Amino acid sequence: MKKVVTFGEIMLRLSTPNYQRFVQAESFDVTYGGGEANVAASLANYGLDAYFVTKVPDNPMGQAAINHLRRYGVHTDHILKGGPRLGIYFLEYGASQRPSKVVYDRANSSISQVKAGEFDWEKIFQGADLFHFTGITPALGDAAAAATLEACQAAKKMGVTVSCDYNYRKNLWSPQKANEIMSRLMEYVDIGIGNEEDAEKVFGIHATGTDVTSGQLSLEGYKSVARQLVERFGFKKTAITLRESYSAFDNGWSALLYDGKEFYHSKKYNIHIVDRVGGGDSFVGGLLYGLLSGMSNQEALEFGVAASCLKHTIHGDFNHVTVSEVKSLMEGDASGRVQR
Amino acid sequence: MKKVVTFGEIMLRLSTPNYQRFVQAESFDVTYGGGEANVAASLANYGLDAYFVTKVPDNPMGQAAINHLRRYGVHTDHILKGGPRLGIYFLEYGASQRPSKVVYDRANSSISQVKAGEFDWEKIFQGADLFHFTGITPALGDAAAAATLEACQAAKKMGVTVSCDYNYRKNLWSPQKANEIMSRLMEYVDIGIGNEEDAEKVFGIHATGTDVTSGQLSLEGYKSVARQLVERFGFKKTAITLRESYSAFDNGWSALLYDGKEFYHSKKYNIHIVDRVGGGDSFVGGLLYGLLSGMSNQEALEFGVAASCLKHTIHGDFNHVTVSEVKSLMEGDASGRVQR
Amino acid sequence: MKKVVTFGEIMLRLSTPNYQRFVQAESFDVTYGGGEANVAASLANYGLDAYFVTKVPDNPMGQAAINHLRRYGVHTDHILKGGPRLGIYFLEYGASQRPSKVVYDRANSSISQVKAGEFDWEKIFQGADLFHFTGITPALGDAAAAATLEACQAAKKMGVTVSCDYNYRKNLWSPQKANEIMSRLMEYVDIGIGNEEDAEKVFGIHATGTDVTSGQLSLEGYKSVARQLVERFGFKKTAITLRESYSAFDNGWSALLYDGKEFYHSKKYNIHIVDRVGGGDSFVGGLLYGLLSGMSNQEALEFGVAASCLKHTIHGDFNHVTVSEVKSLMEGDASGRVQR
Amino acid sequence: MKKVVTFGEIMLRLSTPNYQRFVQAESFDVTYGGGEANVAASLANYGLDAYFVTKVPDNPMGQAAINHLRRYGVHTDHILKGGPRLGIYFLEYGASQRPSKVVYDRANSSISQVKAGEFDWEKIFQGADLFHFTGITPALGDAAAAATLEACQAAKKMGVTVSCDYNYRKNLWSPQKANEIMSRLMEYVDIGIGNEEDAEKVFGIHATGTDVTSGQLSLEGYKSVARQLVERFGFKKTAITLRESYSAFDNGWSALLYDGKEFYHSKKYNIHIVDRVGGGDSFVGGLLYGLLSGMSNQEALEFGVAASCLKHTIHGDFNHVTVSEVKSLMEGDASGRVQR
Amino acid sequence: MKKVVTFGEIMLRLSTPNYQRFVQAESFDVTYGGGEANVAASLANYGLDAYFVTKVPDNPMGQAAINHLRRYGVHTDHILKGGPRLGIYFLEYGASQRPSKVVYDRANSSISQVKAGEFDWEKIFQGADLFHFTGITPALGDAAAAATLEACQAAKKMGVTVSCDYNYRKNLWSPQKANEIMSRLMEYVDIGIGNEEDAEKVFGIHATGTDVTSGQLSLEGYKSVARQLVERFGFKKTAITLRESYSAFDNGWSALLYDGKEFYHSKKYNIHIVDRVGGGDSFVGGLLYGLLSGMSNQEALEFGVAASCLKHTIHGDFNHVTVSEVKSLMEGDASGRVQR
Amino acid sequence: MKKVVTFGEIMLRLSTPNYQRFVQAESFDVTYGGGEANVAASLANYGLDAYFVTKVPDNPMGQAAINHLRRYGVHTDHILKGGPRLGIYFLEYGASQRPSKVVYDRANSSISQVKAGEFDWEKIFQGADLFHFTGITPALGDAAAAATLEACQAAKKMGVTVSCDYNYRKNLWSPQKANEIMSRLMEYVDIGIGNEEDAEKVFGIHATGTDVTSGQLSLEGYKSVARQLVERFGFKKTAITLRESYSAFDNGWSALLYDGKEFYHSKKYNIHIVDRVGGGDSFVGGLLYGLLSGMSNQEALEFGVAASCLKHTIHGDFNHVTVSEVKSLMEGDASGRVQR
Repeated sequence: MKKVVTFGEIMLRLSTPNYQRFVQAESFDVTYGGGEANVAASLANYGLDAYFVTKVPDNPMGQAAINHLRRYGVHTDHILKGGPRLGIYFLEYGASQRPSKVVYDRANSSISQVKAGEFDWEKIFQGADLFHFTGITPALGDAAAAATLEACQAAKKMGVTVSCDYNYRKNLWSPQKANEIMSRLMEYVDIGIGNEEDAEKVFGIHATGTDVTSGQLSLEGYKSVARQLVERFGFKKTAITLRESYSAFDNGWSALLYDGKEFYHSKKYNIHIVDRVGGGDSFVGGLLYGLLSGMSNQEALEFGVAASCLKHTIHGDFNHVTVSEVKSLMEGDASGRVQR
Repeated sequence: MKKVVTFGEIMLRLSTPNYQRFVQAESFDVTYGGGEANVAASLANYGLDAYFVTKVPDNPMGQAAINHLRRYGVHTDHILKGGPRLGIYFLEYGASQRPSKVVYDRANSSISQVKAGEFDWEKIFQGADLFHFTGITPALGDAAAAATLEACQAAKKMGVTVSCDYNYRKNLWSPQKANEIMSRLMEYVDIGIGNEEDAEKVFGIHATGTDVTSGQLSLEGYKSVARQLVERFGFKKTAITLRESYSAFDNGWSALLYDGKEFYHSKKYNIHIVDRVGGGDSFVGGLLYGLLSGMSNQEALEFGVAASCLKHTIHGDFNHVTVSEVKSLMEGDASGRVQR
Repeated sequence: MKKVVTFGEIMLRLSTPNYQRFVQAESFDVTYGGGEANVAASLANYGLDAYFVTKVPDNPMGQAAINHLRRYGVHTDHILKGGPRLGIYFLEYGASQRPSKVVYDRANSSISQVKAGEFDWEKIFQGADLFHFTGITPALGDAAAAATLEACQAAKKMGVTVSCDYNYRKNLWSPQKANEIMSRLMEYVDIGIGNEEDAEKVFGIHATGTDVTSGQLSLEGYKSVARQLVERFGFKKTAITLRESYSAFDNGWSALLYDGKEFYHSKKYNIHIVDRVGGGDSFVGGLLYGLLSGMSNQEALEFGVAASCLKHTIHGDFNHVTVSEVKSLMEGDASGRVQR
Repeated sequence: MKKVVTFGEIMLRLSTPNYQRFVQAESFDVTYGGGEANVAASLANYGLDAYFVTKVPDNPMGQAAINHLRRYGVHTDHILKGGPRLGIYFLEYGASQRPSKVVYDRANSSISQVKAGEFDWEKIFQGADLFHFTGITPALGDAAAAATLEACQAAKKMGVTVSCDYNYRKNLWSPQKANEIMSRLMEYVDIGIGNEEDAEKVFGIHATGTDVTSGQLSLEGYKSVARQLVERFGFKKTAITLRESYSAFDNGWSALLYDGKEFYHSKKYNIHIVDRVGGGDSFVGGLLYGLLSGMSNQEALEFGVAASCLKHTIHGDFNHVTVSEVKSLMEGDASGRVQR
Repeated sequence: MKKVVTFGEIMLRLSTPNYQRFVQAESFDVTYGGGEANVAASLANYGLDAYFVTKVPDNPMGQAAINHLRRYGVHTDHILKGGPRLGIYFLEYGASQRPSKVVYDRANSSISQVKAGEFDWEKIFQGADLFHFTGITPALGDAAAAATLEACQAAKKMGVTVSCDYNYRKNLWSPQKANEIMSRLMEYVDIGIGNEEDAEKVFGIHATGTDVTSGQLSLEGYKSVARQLVERFGFKKTAITLRESYSAFDNGWSALLYDGKEFYHSKKYNIHIVDRVGGGDSFVGGLLYGLLSGMSNQEALEFGVAASCLKHTIHGDFNHVTVSEVKSLMEGDASGRVQR
Repeated sequence: MKKVVTFGEIMLRLSTPNYQRFVQAESFDVTYGGGEANVAASLANYGLDAYFVTKVPDNPMGQAAINHLRRYGVHTDHILKGGPRLGIYFLEYGASQRPSKVVYDRANSSISQVKAGEFDWEKIFQGADLFHFTGITPALGDAAAAATLEACQAAKKMGVTVSCDYNYRKNLWSPQKANEIMSRLMEYVDIGIGNEEDAEKVFGIHATGTDVTSGQLSLEGYKSVARQLVERFGFKKTAITLRESYSAFDNGWSALLYDGKEFYHSKKYNIHIVDRVGGGDSFVGGLLYGLLSGMSNQEALEFGVAASCLKHTIHGDFNHVTVSEVKSLMEGDASGRVQR
C-alpha cells in the first residue's frame, strides 16, 4: 500500500445550518478540515496509508480534530499536541446569487507557532511515496514556513515525490510574500496544482481571456499558465482546476493536466452544489490517487475531477466516496438513479 | 366509497438527514413505507377505503408501522402481529451526480415468513373493488409468494379487479425466478404497471432505443413493450412510467397507458426532486384512483403522473396530496406560486 | 440618519422544516414577520433609523415579536401592548411544482382591534422622513383602516413622504372594499408600489398580455398599469415588481419604476429560491433605501431588485443583507463564489 | 370491546424545546391534545373502542389533529369539519423552581362555536358504554355548553354511563358561571373526577388543611370533599387526584376514590417529571379503563395512578403506555431497570 | 428609569447539546455572554436602561453579539467595532458527578486590545446611576485594565455609584497580579460582590471552616470575609454568594449581604440545575435591581437570590425572568405548579 | 503500552431522542456499541493499545461501525468484513418509574455466523497482555461460541490473561445452555466479572437477601457469590457490580472485588443517570485498566467504579473520560463544580 504524508493545519469548522446567515444562527454544525487534511482524508478513503502531520492544542478541541481524522482512516501518529489553540473557520453556506462566506479565526493556532525541529521528518517520511502540502501551510507564519521548507528538504533527500497545491489565501499573506516564499518551496515540488486564480495571485501568471466572477474561462489561457509553471519551476506535472461559477448553487467543473509534453482536459460536470468547500482538495486527492495507483494521465485527471464532482454533493471538508463510486461516475453514469 | 386492498411489506425506513452520507450520520430520520403500503396511503388520501394487509412483529416497531398507516387514514384491521422482525431499509439521499443509495436489511421479516392460510382473504376482500400487489411481495420468499397467489385467486373468485406493479428487486430474486413466479401471477392481473426497466428485468421484454443510465428513453420502444405485455398476459390495461434521470436532483417524468386499443401519453414534468423514493407507487395510486373514480384513460393517466410529480417534492414514501392539489397541477398550474 | 416609520401587523410565523407538508410536521420553525415590519427590518439593516408601529398582546409571544425586531435593529419604542392575541401564519415551503402554502390565523389580533387615537402619531412622526404602510394594514378591520387613515393624515400634515405597497390579501377583504378604502388612502401616498397582481385586484387596472400562473409577463402591459396608477392617484413614483414563476424553486425577478416621465426597467435575476416570503417587502425596503439615500431612479430600482434577489436566498420574512452585499450583486458579481 | 365516547376540544400544542423560555424559542415542538382527547387516547391505547367527538377547521391543522388521533388509535368518524380555526396552546416547560407556563390562544376555535344540533348524538352513542366530558367543554362558550348538555341528555336516555372531570379553567369562565353550568350538568354524571383544586374552584367545596402552593395536602380534607360531592350530586363514584408539588421537576402523586360507602387511597409515587401536562387526564383514562374492564375499586384506582405516574415521564398530552406496563408498575416494579 | 452601565467582554458561547462531551459534538448551540453583559441583560429585563460597553470585531460574529444584546433590550450605542476577533468559550454541560467544563479561547479578542481613550466615558456615563464591572475585565490585559481604571475614575467623578464582582479567573492572571490591580480599582467601588472563592483568590481573605469541593460552607467564615472586605476597601455594601455544590445537577444556593453594620442572610434554595453558567451574574443583576429600585437590604438580597435561583433553570448566560416572576418565587411559591 | 484484545459484536444502536417512546419517534440517534467493543473503547481512552475483533458486513453500516471504533482510538485491524448484516438494537430511554427498553434485532448478524478458523488468533494475540470477552459472544450462536473457545485456547496457549464478563442475555439463550457453554469457557478465565444478576442466571449461584427490582442488595450475599465463583472456576480475581435501582433516573452504584483472599468494597455513588447502557462495561474497562496499570486491588476497584459512575452521565455505549477525570472523582471531588 502506498504511503502518503500531508502537512498543514486542521481547523474546527463551524457552519450555519440550513442556509442561515451568521446573524440568524442559534447553532453551528461542527466538523474539522483544512486543505492538507482534506487531501489525506481522500487518500485514506481510497485505501492508501495516509498520514496527516500537524500540531493541535492539548485540549478537547484538539482531541476532537484528531478523532475526526481517525474516524475517516487518516493516521495521526505524528500529530503533536501543545500550543495555544485550534484554528477556527466559520462558514455560511451561500445560495443562488448569495455567495458562501468564510470568516477565519485562525491566528495564533498551535500549528502556526510550531518551532523548527519539532517534527522528526526523517521518521515521518520513512517508506513514504508522496509528500503533499499547500500554499496555506507556509502562509501561517514564518515558523510554519520554515517547517514546510524543512519537510520539503527531508522529502527530497529521502526520494519522496513532492506535490503542492498553491492555494492562495489573501488573509494570510500578500502576493509579494507568497511569491517569494512559494517560489523557494517550488524547487522541491514535482507536481504543482492550482485553481483558476492561484497562479496569478501567487506567481503573477495570468490566464488571458478569463474573468472568474463572470464564470467565463478560457482553456487556451490556462494551457499557457500550465506551460509557464512547468517552465519556471520544472514540475513533472501540473494541474489546474477550472471552475465556472454560475451561482452559489451551480458550477461547471473540469480540470487540465500538463506533463510538459501533452495537455489533457477532462470531461466537464455541471454540478448542483451541496457543499463547495474542500472541492479543490478532493480533486487533488483524486488526482494523486490516480497517479499513485498507476492510472494514465488522462485517467488520473478524470478520476480527480469525478471525485471532486461527487465531493460537491457532500457536506463537510472531507470527501466520502469510494474508488468504485468515483469510477462509476467517471465511466459515465451521472444519472443519479437510486442504487438499491 | 370504493374499497381497495393492497398486500405486501411495510418497512422501517431510516434515512440520513440533510444529504449526509451513511458514514457521516449521527441520526436517522424515521418513517415507514413499502410499495404496496405507499399505494394504500395514496388511495386513503384521495378518500377511498384503503386496507393494507401485512404481518408485523408484535413489538414497538411493528406498532409504530401500524400507527403510521393509521395516521394517514389507511385501515389496518387485517394486519397480523407476530414473527421475528420488521424489515428495514436504509436510505441515503443522493444529490446532483451522486445517486441515492438504498441498503436493504429486510431478510427474515415477519411478512416474508408468513404461512399459507394465515390471512382470511374471503373476509378481507368482502366488498372490495380492487386488489393491488407488486412484484416485491412474492419476491420476499416462497411463503410470501404462496400467500400472494392465494390472494390473487381469492380476489378473482370474488370478482375483485386485480392490479400489479412488477417492481423488480434484484436483491430479492433472480430474473429467472421472477419471470417464473410473476408470469404465473399475471394470469389474475387486470391492470399491469411497470417502470422503464421492469418489463425487461422480469419478463425479458426490451424497450429498444433506450438507455436508462443516460437518461434517453424511446417512446416507440415502450409502446412495443406495452403491446407485448397485453398480448402475453391479456391485461385490460397496462401503464409504463418513463423516468428520464438527468441527475439525482433533476428528472423528467411522464407515463404511457395502453388499453389494448389506444396509447395514451401524458404530459412530461421536469422535476427538481426532494424525495424520489415512492415516486412510482404514487403514480400507481393516482392512476388507480383515476380509474376507480370514473376518469377517462387520459385523465386517469394525467392524474397519476401529476400526483407522482408532486410526490417527488415530499419527504417519505407516502404521498401527501389532496385530489384538488393534483387536479390543480394536472390542469396546468405548475407555477409554484405561494397559495395564501 | 434618515428616520422611517412603518405601521402594520407583525405575526408569529410557524413554518414546517425541511420541505415537510403541514400534516407531517412534528415541529415548526419560529420567526416573526409581516409586510410593514419586513420593510422596517430592511431599512434598519441598511443603517436607517427605522421604527415599526403596531400593537401586540402583553404576553410572551408579543414580547418575542418585539425582541425579534430589536435584534435586527428596528426601533420598537412606539409599539403598544395589549389586546387579545398575536396574529399567526403557518407556512409550508413549496418545492418544484408544489406551491408554498400559507394558512393565516390572524383574526382578532391585537393590532386588528386597535382603537382610533391609541397611537400618538404626532410624536411618532417627529423628525421622520418617510412613512410606509401596505394594503394589509387597513384590511385588518375597520379600526385598523381608521388608524391607517389617521397616520396618513398626520404624516401629510407633518411633511413626511408617504409610501404604500398595495399588497392585496383576498382572505382579508373583497376587491370592492379594498378599492374603496385604498383609493381613499392613496390621496396621501407619494410612492405607490405593487406586484404584478395587486393593481388589478385592488384598483381593477389590468396588465394586458400577462398570465401569472403561466409565468408569462408583458412589460408593455405593466408600463400601462404604472401610467394609469400615476394618472389616477398622482403618485410621484410608482414601482411594480415582475415575478415570473417557473416553479416553487425557480423564479425570474425584476421590477419597473415610473416617475411620471420615464420608465426604468431593472436587470432580471433568475433565482433558485430558499424562501420566497417577504420577497416583495425586501424590494420595497431596497427601493426606499435607494431613494432616501440619494440614488438615481435607475440605481434605486436596481438596488431594490438586487436586495430582494438576495432575500430569496434567506430564510425568514426579514432580509439580512448589508448595503455592500447588495451593491456587489448590483454591480454584477452574481457568481456566488466563496468569499473568504 | 367496550366503546367509549369523549367530547371536547383538541388543540394544537406548541411547546418550546429543551427547557427554553418562550422568548428564546426558535422552534416549537408540535403535538395535539386536550383533556377529553387525552382520555380517549388513553382508552384506545388500552384496547377499547374510543371515539373522540369535536369540530375542527377544514384546513391542514384540523387534518393534522385528526391524524394525530388516528395514529394513536382513536376513532375520528364523528369529528366535524368547519368553522374558523383550531385552538392553540403554547407550553413552556418549567424546571426546578420555575413553573411550567401555558399560554392559551383558543378563543373562536371551531368547537367553541359549534351549533346545537350539529352532532347526531343518537348515532354517536350507538352501543356506547361510557360518555366522558370535562369542565373545559362547556366553558368554551354557550354553544359548547348547550352541546354538552345535549350530549349528556342523549347519553342518559340511551343508558350510557357518564363521567366528568371538573377541570376548572380560570381563563375560560368565572367560578360563578362554572358552578351554575356544571351543577346543571352534574345531574347526568355517574362518575365525578377532579384534582385537588377543582372542587373548590367549581363547586366551592374546600379541602381543609391544604395549601397547594406549599405542596401540603390533607387526606382527611379531601375525604370530606369527596363525601360532599357525592351527597350533592349523587355520583356513584368520585375520585380526587392528590398532587404534591415540590418543584416543577418533583411531584408526589396519588389519588382517592369514594364510592359512597368506602374510601380507597392509592399508593403514592414520587415522580421526577418529564411532562406534566395531561397527567390528570391519564389518571382519568386509567381509572375508567379499570372500572370498565371489571377491576375492583382499589385496583382501578391503582391502575389510574400508576398509568398517570408513567404519563409524567412521557412527552405530549397523550399517554403512551400499555396495560402490561401499567400493571408492572402497579404490582411494584418501580426500579426503572433496563428491560431487554 | 434608572440608567446602568456595565463594561467588559461579550463572548461567543459554543455549548454541546444534550449533555454531550466535547469529543462527541457534531453541533454547538450558539449564544453570547460574559459576566458584565449578563448583568446588563438582567437589568434590561427588569426594565432599567442598561448599557453594555465593549469592543467587538467588525464581522458577522461581532454583529451577532450586538444583536443578541439588543434582542434582550440592552442598549448597544456605545459598543465599538474593530480589532481582531470575538472571544469564544466552549461549554460542556456537566451531569451528576461529571463537572461542567469551560474551555476558553478568548486571547486576543478585540476588547482585550482596546486602547486607552477609545471610550468616551463622559458621554457614556451621562445620567447614569450605576457603573458595574467585574474582575474579568482588567484581567483581559493591561490595556483593558487601564480602560477599567479610566472608567472607574470617570464614574467617580460624575457621581455614579460603582459596583464590582471580583470574579477571579485563574486562566487570565495570577492571584498576585489580580490582588495588585484589583486592590487599586477597589478604591472606586461602592458595592463589592463575590462568590465563596473570590475573596481568597483575589485578596487572600480566607473563609475558615469551608471546603468548596465538599459542598460544606461555613456562614460564620463568610461573615468574617465580608467584614474584612468592608474594612479594607471601605465598601458601602458587600455581598457574597454561597454555593453548595452537591453535584453538577444539584446545588444549594443562598447569599449574604453586609452593609458595614448588619448581616443579612437569604433563604436557601435547593436547585436542580439546567444551566449553571451566569448564575452568579444573575444574582448581581437581581441585587443591583433591588438596591436601585429602593428595596430594603433584605428584600434586595432575597430578590437577587430568587432571580439567580430561576436563572439556574434557564439555558444561556442571560437570565430571562420578569420582576413579577422573581417576586412570586421570593414570596414563597416554589411549587413549580403549571401556570395557565 | 499494554495491549488488550476484546472479541464480540458491535451493533448499530438506534435510540429515541429526548425521552420519546418508540411509537413517538420521528428520528433515531445513531451510535454503535456492544459489551466487548465498549470495554475496548474504555481501554483505548486510557491510552492502552486496544484491539476489537469482530466481523461486520461489507456495507456502509459495517464501515460506520469501524469508523466509530477508530474515532475513539480502538484498533480495527483484525475486523473481518462480510456476512449478511450488522446487528441492531433499539433503545428507548426510561425516565423516573418508566424503565429503559431495549429491543434487539441482532439475529443473523455477520459475527453470529462467523465460521471456525476465520480469525487468525495467533496473529491477533501477538504481544497481547489481556484477552477479554463476555457471555454475549458465545450466546450469539454455535459458531460464535466455537470461535470464542478457539480464542480462549489460543490466548491461554500464548500466556495472555483472560477476563470475562458473564453478561447474561435471556433473549439469546437459556440459563441451561448458558451454564453449559460458559462453564466450559470459564476454564480459561483468570478474571471473572458480573453484575448482581448474572451469577444466578448463568451459574445458578444466588445472592441471598437480595431483590433487584426493589433496589435492595445484600453485601454479604454477594460475598458468598464471589467465593463460590472463585471456588468453582479457580478465578484469580472476581468482581461484582452492585446496582441499586431506585428509578430509571437514580441508581446507587458500587462494586465488590475478591482475590481469593480478601474482599474489597468500593465507595458507593448515588448517580442521576443520563445513559445507563454500557455502565457495566465501563466498570470492566476501568477495573482492567487499574489492574493492567499496576494499581492495588482497592485502587483498581475504585477506578472502575468511578469510571463507570462517570459513564452514567454520558450518552452512548462508550465511556468518554480520561484517566485524570476518573482519578479526580475517585479522589473525592464529586461536587460537579464548573471547571474553567
